[in-house]
Amino acid sequence: MIPQTVQWAGDAVKMIDQTKLPHKLVMVEYHDWHDVAASITDMVVRGAPAIGGTAACGLALAGRQIAEAGGEFMPQFLHACEVFAATRPTAVNLFWAIERMKGVALKAPSASEASRLLRVESELVLEEDIAINRKLGFYGQELLPDPCRVQTHCNAGALACVGYGTALGVFRAAREAGKQIKVYADETRPRLQGMQLTGWELIEDGFEVTIITDNMAASLQSRGEVDAVVVGADRIAMNGDTANKVGTFGLAVISNYHHVPFYIAAPLSTFDQKLADGSGIPIEERTHREVSHIQDVQIAPNGAKFWNPGFDVTPAALIAGIITEQGVLRPPYTQSIMQAIKGAK
Amino acid sequence: MIPQTVQWAGDAVKMIDQTKLPHKLVMVEYHDWHDVAASITDMVVRGAPAIGGTAACGLALAGRQIAEAGGEFMPQFLHACEVFAATRPTAVNLFWAIERMKGVALKAPSASEASRLLRVESELVLEEDIAINRKLGFYGQELLPDPCRVQTHCNAGALACVGYGTALGVFRAAREAGKQIKVYADETRPRLQGMQLTGWELIEDGFEVTIITDNMAASLQSRGEVDAVVVGADRIAMNGDTANKVGTFGLAVISNYHHVPFYIAAPLSTFDQKLADGSGIPIEERTHREVSHIQDVQIAPNGAKFWNPGFDVTPAALIAGIITEQGVLRPPYTQSIMQAIKGAK
Repeated sequence: MIPQTVQWAGDAVKMIDQTKLPHKLVMVEYHDWHDVAASITDMVVRGAPAIGGTAACGLALAGRQIAEAGGEFMPQFLHACEVFAATRPTAVNLFWAIERMKGVALKAPSASEASRLLRVESELVLEEDIAINRKLGFYGQELLPDPCRVQTHCNAGALACVGYGTALGVFRAAREAGKQIKVYADETRPRLQGMQLTGWELIEDGFEVTIITDNMAASLQSRGEVDAVVVGADRIAMNGDTANKVGTFGLAVISNYHHVPFYIAAPLSTFDQKLADGSGIPIEERTHREVSHIQDVQIAPNGAKFWNPGFDVTPAALIAGIITEQGVLRPPYTQSIMQAIKGAK
Repeated sequence: MIPQTVQWAGDAVKMIDQTKLPHKLVMVEYHDWHDVAASITDMVVRGAPAIGGTAACGLALAGRQIAEAGGEFMPQFLHACEVFAATRPTAVNLFWAIERMKGVALKAPSASEASRLLRVESELVLEEDIAINRKLGFYGQELLPDPCRVQTHCNAGALACVGYGTALGVFRAAREAGKQIKVYADETRPRLQGMQLTGWELIEDGFEVTIITDNMAASLQSRGEVDAVVVGADRIAMNGDTANKVGTFGLAVISNYHHVPFYIAAPLSTFDQKLADGSGIPIEERTHREVSHIQDVQIAPNGAKFWNPGFDVTPAALIAGIITEQGVLRPPYTQSIMQAIKGAK
């Protein structure tokens, strides 16, 4: 069993250090909220729902530290919210968690009460994440035949969430439903989350996993080897346009070409109600070193330029369904997304 | 200036050791034909036309060694041909070169005369390769606007040929015609030929090169950053279906989705007149270690399976034109390919 990605250990926030996988399973404990924020920037933790859960815990820790230090509570707490908001730009679950925690703090009658309520709320965020993923997995697994060969990109697993996973939660639910599941994992350059995180967590859980380089998808699908593709999401616009790890868009185009159904699996906290379509989603550009080096060894020639967007936006027209805890949303997404969000309220 | 990829140095076959690039430019010299054959298997040399040129030189070296050792010439020479034929399965230029050298040997009146004629023929193969690429580049550059942002995959450059290059020859010819060319090079996992060979050789030649991971192509093209894609080929069937480095097929699908013209650049020796379509092209499956390790460091989790096809087959319907030394072939390819081959005779 994989430990929970983000959890409380007494008064510390405890996490799997995902930069050490797949070679070593290392747990880290943070006693200062600044370090929790840095863990998001440094990708000790990554994956949109996991970032949301981490921010919730980090802000609860900030609440306690601020209450203990004394001084006016809210200005200091809002500063902590700003620090978390600046950690990574694309995953909307981060901002969702910050707003949720901010709302709790604003309603609290005192600093000590705010500290207590923020901790309770953060525990609720963690519990809900797993419950939502199990629900989402239940709906999603109904889309998969038995036996089924699925393909996924990057890591939308237990490691990308508090636990269970979104896309990989669908695979887990399918197996729990008695289906035979074989997984193809894109390695997902430049950071190799598909190989190193999805590969690791599914092998730990006893799945059969075949790793391919990202550029083998067309060849694999043309051989009839893939029944469905399921990936996660970092932010979904109200028309269904979906930002996810770079390479998702290309995989969607290739899947459509081969008539392989392409699904997104994501909790409702991934929808950005402020965005009509994907053109407004901010795409994080990351250091060139992720492309030019692997494990600190330079692989690129001197003198080259690089481009390293962390995410891309898949147009809604390429998506067969969006798997949420409210069921599988189908086109036209403008309607089905609005209905799901209303239904959840 | 980059040295010629394959050349004669006295009685030795001299080559760039491409496994050492982009970190060091190392030349190797082979005095035994068995080592030349091994250099193809070990990818000291790679790229369909370069493999053809290397086989021609290797068989000329074999001819000399056999003639010097004495004994019946043809059985020993045919054995050498078999060894070369077994080095790599996909590039048809290898078999084209072997057949050409076999024809020369069969017509020679004596072992010593065979040895002499094989050497002459191998020099002709090398010279022709560069002349063909210059011609092909001339026709190909006419397809590119000025200024032009081109994308390429793997290495179809001087390093993949005796010199000048096919796809990269088109870029060189465009620059010689006064056009402003900016190149996007896919890194080309698993062996990174796009990053390490295309990147290196174009930077050496003063081109502006931006390296992306293979899975960024859709995002790049959706931003309107690519005017044309030009790649090489390892084998082309008579209907235009084209085997090339794995990832080419996916890039073609993505280019078609974005209405970016997708071109193949290859000499006529790349066409396989025995194959009606791409379904019969043998696809080499290579060691899993190419995917699971980078520079001898394991990057994959233990327990994973891998799939590592070296090539894929792009359907002719996705190809806007095939650039050859006889001009740019257009659909319907069944007719235009046959005409070009007849025209060349």
